[in-house]
Amino acid sequence: MPVVATYRLPVGADPHKLGEKIAVGQTAGSWNAAWEPRAGRFQDHLAHVVGAVTDHPDGHPRVRVSFPDADIEGDLGSLLTLVFGKYSMAGPLALDDLELPDSFGRTPKVGLSGLRDRLGVHDRPFVMAIFKPALGLSAQDHADILRDVGMAGLDLIKDDEIMADLPAAPTAERLAACSRSLDEVQAATGRRPLYALNLTGGGGSVVDRARQLEDAGAECFLLNGLAYGWHTVEQVRDAVDVPIFLHPAFAGAIAGAPDHGLPYRLLLGTLPAFSGVDAVLYPAHYGSLPFDPAEEAAIRDALRARNVAPVPSAGIHPGVVPRALSDYGQDVILNAGTGIMDHPGGPADGVRAFFEALDRHGAGEPFTVVDDPSTPLDVALATWGIG
Amino acid sequence: MPVVATYRLPVGADPHKLGEKIAVGQTAGSWNAAWEPRAGRFQDHLAHVVGAVTDHPDGHPRVRVSFPDADIEGDLGSLLTLVFGKYSMAGPLALDDLELPDSFGRTPKVGLSGLRDRLGVHDRPFVMAIFKPALGLSAQDHADILRDVGMAGLDLIKDDEIMADLPAAPTAERLAACSRSLDEVQAATGRRPLYALNLTGGGGSVVDRARQLEDAGAECFLLNGLAYGWHTVEQVRDAVDVPIFLHPAFAGAIAGAPDHGLPYRLLLGTLPAFSGVDAVLYPAHYGSLPFDPAEEAAIRDALRARNVAPVPSAGIHPGVVPRALSDYGQDVILNAGTGIMDHPGGPADGVRAFFEALDRHGAGEPFTVVDDPSTPLDVALATWGIG
Repeated sequence: MPVVATYRLPVGADPHKLGEKIAVGQTAGSWNAAWEPRAGRFQDHLAHVVGAVTDHPDGHPRVRVSFPDADIEGDLGSLLTLVFGKYSMAGPLALDDLELPDSFGRTPKVGLSGLRDRLGVHDRPFVMAIFKPALGLSAQDHADILRDVGMAGLDLIKDDEIMADLPAAPTAERLAACSRSLDEVQAATGRRPLYALNLTGGGGSVVDRARQLEDAGAECFLLNGLAYGWHTVEQVRDAVDVPIFLHPAFAGAIAGAPDHGLPYRLLLGTLPAFSGVDAVLYPAHYGSLPFDPAEEAAIRDALRARNVAPVPSAGIHPGVVPRALSDYGQDVILNAGTGIMDHPGGPADGVRAFFEALDRHGAGEPFTVVDDPSTPLDVALATWGIG
Repeated sequence: MPVVATYRLPVGADPHKLGEKIAVGQTAGSWNAAWEPRAGRFQDHLAHVVGAVTDHPDGHPRVRVSFPDADIEGDLGSLLTLVFGKYSMAGPLALDDLELPDSFGRTPKVGLSGLRDRLGVHDRPFVMAIFKPALGLSAQDHADILRDVGMAGLDLIKDDEIMADLPAAPTAERLAACSRSLDEVQAATGRRPLYALNLTGGGGSVVDRARQLEDAGAECFLLNGLAYGWHTVEQVRDAVDVPIFLHPAFAGAIAGAPDHGLPYRLLLGTLPAFSGVDAVLYPAHYGSLPFDPAEEAAIRDALRARNVAPVPSAGIHPGVVPRALSDYGQDVILNAGTGIMDHPGGPADGVRAFFEALDRHGAGEPFTVVDDPSTPLDVALATWGIG
C-alpha cells in the first residue's frame, strides 16, 4: 500500500510541476544516460502526483504525491525522511496531510479501551491531574499529593513534563513513594489511579530506563516524544506493556508556522496514532495556549480512529467541562494542572469539583457563578469562571 | 553551570515581562499560599531573565533566560523540553540562541581530527560522494560504484538519506558488497575510503542495529537525526565507535520559519555539536537549496568548536571549490551527489575533477570554462559552470 503525502505549496506555484519535482527529488532522483538500460528499476521507486488543488481557500495550492511501497521501510523516522526530508528545506513548503495504510506503523498496546478497562471507568470522561508546582516538590510531596487526590477519586495523574530525573526528586524515588500512596488509595477505595511517570534520558537509554522502571513498578509513562524523537517513542512502546502518554513539548517548533513543517493535526494526531502511544496531550482551544478548534477536532478524530485517548490540556478547569463534553462526549481525558492543584479548598477539592461538574452537566443543570460558593464546583467556578 | 536560552519575541513584546513569564512558566511555575512556607525550594528551580535586547535590527526583541543547574538532567531531549517545551506552542516565539556549558552533553568519539587520522588526509579538504540514483541501485551496483570512485581517490561516500533498509538493496547486503570493494581499493591503493551506511529503524531498534552493523564491519554511519530524534542520535553515539554523519532531513520543518522553532545555526550547529556526532551535513548557500550564508558560517563555527566536521551539501560540484575553500579553508568535507556521479566521463572522473580543482586552486590558477574541455575538471566546469 502506498503512502500519500499532500503538500501546501507557495502561493502561485504550479502544483503539477512542483509536485513532480518533489516526486522525483524525494525518491529515485534523476538518472543519466549510462543507467538508461535499467530505467525500469528506478521507475519502480518513483513517486507520482495523484492529485492537485489549485483553488484552495487559503490561496496555497496543494499537491498529492503517492510514494510506492518499494520506498517504505515502515517506521516514522524513515517515513518523514522520505516524504519531507530534503524538501522540508526547500523554502515555504509544508507537509499538509499524510494518508497512511492501516497496516503502517504501530497500534497502542493499551489504548483508550484498555485505559477504561484498567481504571474501571466506562460511562464518563477520565479526570487527570498534573503535579504542581512543576519543580521543587520532593518525592514524598508527590506521594502526599497523590494520596490526597487519589482518595478523592482521581483517575490519573502525571508529572509535569519538565520534571526530569533531578536530584531534588529522582524518578525512582518518585515512583517508589507514589507507589506506596497508590497502594493506600487502593486499599481504602478499591480503585488504583494511574501515575504517568516522566521518562527522561540523562542517565542513558530511555528505552532501557523504561524497562527498568516498569520492573520497579511503573504503571504508566509520560514521554516528551517530540523532544526525544519518534524512534524513541516507538522503541519505548515495543519495550513496555504499560500505557504511554505522549506530551507535546516542542511541538510548536514543528507545527507553529503555516508555511513550514507540518500542522498540529498531523504532528499530534496522525503521527502519534501510528507510533503506538496510548494517549496524546495537546492544547485545548479553550485553554491557556492559542489553538485552532478545527485542528483540535482533527487531532481528536485521528487519535480515536486508532483507539488512542485524546487529552486536551493547558488551562483546563472545572468550568470548561460543559464545553469539553460538547466537543468530546465521554471519550476524553480531562487533564488539569493548576485547575486541580490550586483549588482554594486544596487538590482533593479540585478533584471533587471535576466530578461535581460531570454530575451537574449530566443532570442538565446550568453552571453559574454564585455569590456565596460552598461546594467544590461552586468555589472552582468562582475562582476560574465558566470557560 | 546554568544554560542560557535566548528567545526571539513578537514585535512590540516587552522582553522583561515576557521573559519573566517564560522563566516561571517553563520551570517551577507558580505556587499557592499553601506552599509559601517552602518557597525557597521552588525558588531554587526558577529561571531568571539575565538580559534583553529591545532594539534588535529585525525589530523582534530578544530576552535571555538563565536556567539553573537544578533543572538540567543533561540530555538534549530534556533540555529542549525545559527551554522550549510548552512555550514552543505559545504563538510566534522562537528559540534564538542556546549557551551550553562545555561540560554539557556529548563530544564526538572520532571527530574532524579523528577523520583526518583514519583517512590519512591532513593537508586538504576531504572529498565525499553520494550514491546516485538515490533508489533503484542494487547492493552490487553500490559496490561497483564504490570500487570505481575509490580507485580514483575518493575519501568518503554515503548512501542517499532516503535509502532505507529496502528489499531492492538491503542495508546488510550493501554493507557486505561495499566492504569487498573497500578491501579491493585498499589492496590496490593503500587507502581505504569510509562508507557512511544509512542507519534506519524499520526492523527494530536503530541502536541495536548500529551495534550489529558495526560488528558486521560497518566503518561509518549516516543518521537522519532530526527525523529519528536526538535521543537516538545520542544513543547510537554511545553504542558504536565508528564515525556518525548527521543528515539534516526534516530540519526545515523546525528551522524554516523565523517566528517559530529554532534557527538552522542552532539546529544543525549547536545541538549536533553537543550530541556526539562526528560530522554534520547541511545546505551550502551556493548549492541547490535556499540558505543564508550567515547561518552556514555560524553552523561551521559551532561544529568546529567541538571538533565536528562541517559537510556543506546539496548542489556541490567542482566549480564551487574556490568559493568553498574561501569560506572554509581546509577543514571541510566537500560532499557531492550528482556533482560526482553525473560527470560526463563517469563517477571516477567526477572524483578526479574535484582533486584537479583542489590542485588548480592550490596553485592559484583561475577556473575558466573552455570551448574544448579535455581534463575531468574542464569537463565538469563546462557541464555545471563555476559556482
